[in-house]
Amino acid sequence: MPDVAQVHLVGAGPGDPELLTVKAQRLLREAEVVVYDRLVSAAVLELAPPGAMRVDVGKRRGCHNRSQDEINALLVRLARAGRRVVRLKGGDPFVFGRGSEEADHLARHGVPFEVVPGITAAAGCAAAAGIPLTHRGVASGVRFVTGHCREGRELDLNWASLADPDTTLVVYMGLANLGRIAERLIAAGLPAETPAVAIAAGTTPTERLCRASLAELPAKAAQAELDAPVLVIVGRVVALAETWGTLPADDAADAAEARLRHG
Amino acid sequence: MPDVAQVHLVGAGPGDPELLTVKAQRLLREAEVVVYDRLVSAAVLELAPPGAMRVDVGKRRGCHNRSQDEINALLVRLARAGRRVVRLKGGDPFVFGRGSEEADHLARHGVPFEVVPGITAAAGCAAAAGIPLTHRGVASGVRFVTGHCREGRELDLNWASLADPDTTLVVYMGLANLGRIAERLIAAGLPAETPAVAIAAGTTPTERLCRASLAELPAKAAQAELDAPVLVIVGRVVALAETWGTLPADDAADAAEARLRHG
Repeated sequence: MPDVAQVHLVGAGPGDPELLTVKAQRLLREAEVVVYDRLVSAAVLELAPPGAMRVDVGKRRGCHNRSQDEINALLVRLARAGRRVVRLKGGDPFVFGRGSEEADHLARHGVPFEVVPGITAAAGCAAAAGIPLTHRGVASGVRFVTGHCREGRELDLNWASLADPDTTLVVYMGLANLGRIAERLIAAGLPAETPAVAIAAGTTPTERLCRASLAELPAKAAQAELDAPVLVIVGRVVALAETWGTLPADDAADAAEARLRHG
Repeated sequence: MPDVAQVHLVGAGPGDPELLTVKAQRLLREAEVVVYDRLVSAAVLELAPPGAMRVDVGKRRGCHNRSQDEINALLVRLARAGRRVVRLKGGDPFVFGRGSEEADHLARHGVPFEVVPGITAAAGCAAAAGIPLTHRGVASGVRFVTGHCREGRELDLNWASLADPDTTLVVYMGLANLGRIAERLIAAGLPAETPAVAIAAGTTPTERLCRASLAELPAKAAQAELDAPVLVIVGRVVALAETWGTLPADDAADAAEARLRHG
């Protein structure tokens, strides 16, 4: 019987294959099995050897390919079979995305694992759009929350704490509940005119940006018909990027949607 | 007169050279000049061509090699001379570390720049220690603040907002003001027994961890004589990592200091 192999929980970064870490690239090239999510790009998957087994466990909204329980069980089974497994997750495995639930399951079943960090969507999208997440005198810190909640549930967030004009707020998976999020933040005291941007498919060739005030962002994003995954950045740092010219100005974004081209 | 070159503001990641992005590695290999900080490891610098000019602008506490103004002016001068400049910063250029101040200066002087994200210390240290930054039912989000303040100033943080048991709190440069930070968080309502860990030189061969409750962490970190840079993670996710065995348990850390060995 083969030894139990170590599972590598690897962050694939935000989409651009050049934003993979050197370590993730090496592990992919050595992989026997790659278990990957919907948010992992084809260009990243191509790094695995041609003979490697590729298992798509991508979960789509309302149409789960495989349940989390099935993914957990699959990882344990592959590790016990001694296979060199890379579990590839969009962004960073330990920032949303349920990587820690897989780690928890592996630990409970005696399967060793290693976590390889990835560029999380917030850092990737912010860099691509030239928006600093922190900036002396403008944002003393940054905060990541998820805008996703289980079907039929209310978003359970501490709105009073989130409505802090001195902290950049990044909402992952923010599209579906964007109207509710903007409404609650404003009700909790965040100025309606706080600069905000919604970024779809950030860092990829199909990246699209929608720039507006917090109050107007939900309508503008709907009009622009952005597709998930969408990352929302709220805070005065967004306006700072406009002064640099790295982000198109709100006024210039008349078509309710702006597209950023990278040099 | 040469064209003004684009400056690359590049994240060097948390220390382990394998945690550099593929893009950062490529830009370093093509660099004519590398302007780097104290937090950038020698192994990373070695990636630049032997003939590349290396400029150390590392700032040490109370002993600034070069002022921020001098660094800003240097970058503009090199870009105007048409040099291929990589401005290499520890972690991510847009998460603390004043990368955005350099971007601001470049933009104001008409110098184009590109930001290449890096693995920020929070993600790098969390992955190495097996601590998830978010986990369903334990931490619904994560927040980054800096524990550094200008000489003689008070830390200006919104303690009531920070004292949220459902959000993982990461404090960058948290060593110097650790006592004050723990005291304020507890006064603002965060339970004194909230699990916490201080990580020095995270992801490098000299990484050291100090695990304690929030109340006891300042004394334990002092006793362990941790050296900066230190990242502090506060939240119930720290205890979760203990159940996985990726982080040594608090009780086992009798010597007031524990060292984590990576597989």
